[in-house]
Amino acid sequence: MNYRFANRMLGMQTSPLRENAKKNMEESEVISFAYGFPPTEAFPMETLQEISQKIYTEVDPQLLLQYGATEGYPVLRELIKERLATINHIENDEEVMVVSGSTQAMDVAVKVLCNEGDIVLCEEMTFSGAVNAIRGYGAVPQAVPMKIEEESIDLEVLEEMLRMDIHHRIKMLYLIPTFQNPLGTSIPLEKRQAIYDIAQKYDVVIFEDDPYGDLLYEGDPIPKIKEMDTDGRVIYAGSFSKILAPSTRLGFVMAPDELLEKLILAKQVSDSHSNFYWQVMLAEFMQHYNFEAHVDFLKALYKENLTAMMDGLDRLPSEKISYIKPTGGYFICCKLTDTIDMKKFYQYLEEDKVVVIPGNIMSVKGAGYDHYIRLNFTKPTVEEIITGIERLGKAVDKADMKEIYRAS
Amino acid sequence: MNYRFANRMLGMQTSPLRENAKKNMEESEVISFAYGFPPTEAFPMETLQEISQKIYTEVDPQLLLQYGATEGYPVLRELIKERLATINHIENDEEVMVVSGSTQAMDVAVKVLCNEGDIVLCEEMTFSGAVNAIRGYGAVPQAVPMKIEEESIDLEVLEEMLRMDIHHRIKMLYLIPTFQNPLGTSIPLEKRQAIYDIAQKYDVVIFEDDPYGDLLYEGDPIPKIKEMDTDGRVIYAGSFSKILAPSTRLGFVMAPDELLEKLILAKQVSDSHSNFYWQVMLAEFMQHYNFEAHVDFLKALYKENLTAMMDGLDRLPSEKISYIKPTGGYFICCKLTDTIDMKKFYQYLEEDKVVVIPGNIMSVKGAGYDHYIRLNFTKPTVEEIITGIERLGKAVDKADMKEIYRAS
Repeated sequence: MNYRFANRMLGMQTSPLRENAKKNMEESEVISFAYGFPPTEAFPMETLQEISQKIYTEVDPQLLLQYGATEGYPVLRELIKERLATINHIENDEEVMVVSGSTQAMDVAVKVLCNEGDIVLCEEMTFSGAVNAIRGYGAVPQAVPMKIEEESIDLEVLEEMLRMDIHHRIKMLYLIPTFQNPLGTSIPLEKRQAIYDIAQKYDVVIFEDDPYGDLLYEGDPIPKIKEMDTDGRVIYAGSFSKILAPSTRLGFVMAPDELLEKLILAKQVSDSHSNFYWQVMLAEFMQHYNFEAHVDFLKALYKENLTAMMDGLDRLPSEKISYIKPTGGYFICCKLTDTIDMKKFYQYLEEDKVVVIPGNIMSVKGAGYDHYIRLNFTKPTVEEIITGIERLGKAVDKADMKEIYRAS
Repeated sequence: MNYRFANRMLGMQTSPLRENAKKNMEESEVISFAYGFPPTEAFPMETLQEISQKIYTEVDPQLLLQYGATEGYPVLRELIKERLATINHIENDEEVMVVSGSTQAMDVAVKVLCNEGDIVLCEEMTFSGAVNAIRGYGAVPQAVPMKIEEESIDLEVLEEMLRMDIHHRIKMLYLIPTFQNPLGTSIPLEKRQAIYDIAQKYDVVIFEDDPYGDLLYEGDPIPKIKEMDTDGRVIYAGSFSKILAPSTRLGFVMAPDELLEKLILAKQVSDSHSNFYWQVMLAEFMQHYNFEAHVDFLKALYKENLTAMMDGLDRLPSEKISYIKPTGGYFICCKLTDTIDMKKFYQYLEEDKVVVIPGNIMSVKGAGYDHYIRLNFTKPTVEEIITGIERLGKAVDKADMKEIYRAS
């Protein structure tokens, strides 16, 4: 038969994750800076094995294996709220819902807030899963230009876009304010406050996606936009993919009651509830084992990797390849100089078996960022980072048209 | 702030599951025939504990805990295909995707096939989660009248609805052909073939939802509509909620390649992939332990419950309460005679601490089935079934206006 697919499917693209999750399972000599994956050492195998052994004898099977409440395991929800208060200084009367990764938080938020044709503002370069979620309900992702050097979006343009939106088609502003994907940058405090004030002035919801927020390696944390939320306009989403394990699909979303009720309903339709066995596992980990020590271990591990990658990049000529130093998270985003032939650059990288994510893949428009590349520093080892960045430097040199011109 | 919710949210209702999943966790003297839950004995605790102990030492953590492919663990997908071939006689070239319960299969199917305003035909009484999934994309569930005595939908009306649909707004026919929820009935073979032929004639997709299909207690299985699918118009969805554990959220969907590709993309946006730890657990169970013996154990367990419930119902006056004997599944649906005051009936049931699901909750229109009740026979014990059905009989007697009239 001839399938007639819904219009919304036309706008959605397969994200690189899928294909490459498969590749990841295969053996390979490739040095990959491509995907936002944790390394094997990041998984707390012994603790998980220990909890998994006691869980079958000590926990009621009706809790562990039965259908559960859509909003999640009450004990875990409470632990998440306590952690938000103590670690992130987010203290309020709002409740959290457990979701299947923060990806699902965005999916249900769009479902609940956007009619077809409505607009969601995004950073120009952002997480492609969020862009797909927006398109998945026939809504339109619209890029707010960035001021990358200032680690922010352009606030004047943001305000202008909202001021011009006389028919109130803009329903949400999607941001990854902390250790942004792909940029690795963090919006400074005063700009966060300014963004919140603009959102308030034009009455728009902010979706603060914060999957990397726990992974701070240097300096003081910047307050979350959610911390400034005086009138319940910020949906705050967190994830355990980066601090427990991605495969378990556990994240959470915090929102005011009226909004959370609708998010719960939307999630119920989508998958009833998130895996309860893992909700119990995580609650046990947080209650009876030292979960924060595990997070500290990850921070030390990744800080070493980040340092190695920055050291390597700093050895390359800064007029050819530049980047903004992240203080946390998963990624460094590099800008290559305009004289570099990107087609040749990727060709040399491939020959040298190094993989990176091209900037345009992370661009809402799919264009405009062809001289940017995203590098992940959590999955590779320090040795791979050193070798890989050296090879990257060679590819930069070889693909620079200015060098080729000089040599000829 | 004032939230402006998307229009699609207006049509969605909280399903009874959510509230009652919570109640289920509380202790209670109530005899519940309400929810489609397995009992504690249904969970293969020893086997799961055994697998969970070896899994951390024998399985690659990168498979167990890392991000995985959206379509699922290849080994599990192959095992599901083999099981479909040997147990359900569904043998074809199509692939399966692992989903987070068969609820998600319907969610992504609607996402992929329905624009706003499109129609999905459903049995008049059906699973409310599917109805919510349809409304969740702004599509419209439309009830096909049933011929309950014939255990089918009205084929003449079905054909008339499709014939009248000159603008091709009807995109899908959603059916639970085997051990229907809430009716417990199964569409006979010749009617399945007739439904398929009509779908073919009017070029519409069939969604065959089969979460109960494995639980056959008596007689021969009826071939699935998917078995008749010569031109790739049947999306077939199965679930492990009823034969492993609901909390794990594992189901699957089978569809032709072109359609499955889109379903995979839709699922990727929703939750990236289903819990991989449990995909590995289930694959281990199916490969190295006797999974079919476990299914047989469940069938014996539930057959005993079904027999007890039918015995109890058969002791009640058939002119007041009648039902069609199921040969499998989770539910019996009873029709109470018109002279019963349903308000009084539910009041007496509540006094006697028995809970059932009112027919109208399972009705697409939310009306027309007020004298029907759905009874689950898998969760209560045989003792609870005997006592509960006796109490149900008393409530029927006491709420019958004819009796009250006679007595006065």
